[in-house]
Amino acid sequence: MELVRVATVESPLTDRATAPKQGDEGAPEAWLSFEPAYADALDGVAEGAELLLLTWFDRAHRDVLRVRPRSDPDRPVQGVFNTRSPDRPNPVGLHRVSVLERDGLRLRVSGLEALDGTPVVDVKPVLGGISER
Amino acid sequence: MELVRVATVESPLTDRATAPKQGDEGAPEAWLSFEPAYADALDGVAEGAELLLLTWFDRAHRDVLRVRPRSDPDRPVQGVFNTRSPDRPNPVGLHRVSVLERDGLRLRVSGLEALDGTPVVDVKPVLGGISER
Repeated sequence: MELVRVATVESPLTDRATAPKQGDEGAPEAWLSFEPAYADALDGVAEGAELLLLTWFDRAHRDVLRVRPRSDPDRPVQGVFNTRSPDRPNPVGLHRVSVLERDGLRLRVSGLEALDGTPVVDVKPVLGGISER
Repeated sequence: MELVRVATVESPLTDRATAPKQGDEGAPEAWLSFEPAYADALDGVAEGAELLLLTWFDRAHRDVLRVRPRSDPDRPVQGVFNTRSPDRPNPVGLHRVSVLERDGLRLRVSGLEALDGTPVVDVKPVLGGISER
C-alpha cells in the first residue's frame, strides 16, 4: 500500500506550530501543482469545483495513538481515531476546498491548512453538495 | 508513503461487479476488525459515533486516469479526480458510516460498500455534524 505523490501543496504555511488546525480557521489560499504524469486525471476539474483533498502529513508522528483534544482541554485523552490529529498511524489529511482558479496543471484553492511542500495523494469531487473537510 | 492496515472490513460483499457503488445505495452492514496494535487509537470510539473511514481499494486499477462516469452515460469521459471511481492513482476510499455496535476491537457499522477483506487505513470523526461519505 504505497502512495504516490500526485501533486504538491504550495502555501505560505511552513510551520506546523503556527498553522491553523482546520481550513475554516483562517487558513490561506494555496496552489496545488500536479505532476505531469497525472494530467489526464484532472480532466474536467475546473474553477468552481468543490473538492476533497487527501494529503500526506509528512511531518506527523505515526507512533502517537492517544492525544488530548485541543478543542476541549477538559476532555480526557482520546484515541487518535476519535480526533482529527495529524499524528496517527497513517497520517492522511482530509480537506474540503473550492477551486478558485485553474492554470494548466495548477489549481488555486481556498483555505487549506496543509503546510508548504505537503504531498497530495488524491482528489475527489464532493458528492451531492454534502460537506466535509 | 507506506500505509499500514489498521483494520479489515468483514462484509458479505465479495464481488466488485455487483457491489453497490456508494454506501447509501443499499450497502449492507459490515464489521471492522482492528489490529490489536492500534487498540489505543480506538479509545473513545463508541456506539453512535459518526465516522469517516479511509480504505484501500486493493482490487482497483491504479493506471486508470480517465473514466466514463456511471451516473450519466451522456457525460464525456472524465479525469478520475473528477469522479469517485475506485480506479485512480492512489485507490483510497472515503466512506461515511455510523457505529451500530462496539465489541472490543470490532465495530459494526452501517451501509458500507467496501468488499470483504478491504484494508482500513484510517478512521476520523465527522466534524460538526457535516456529512460526506
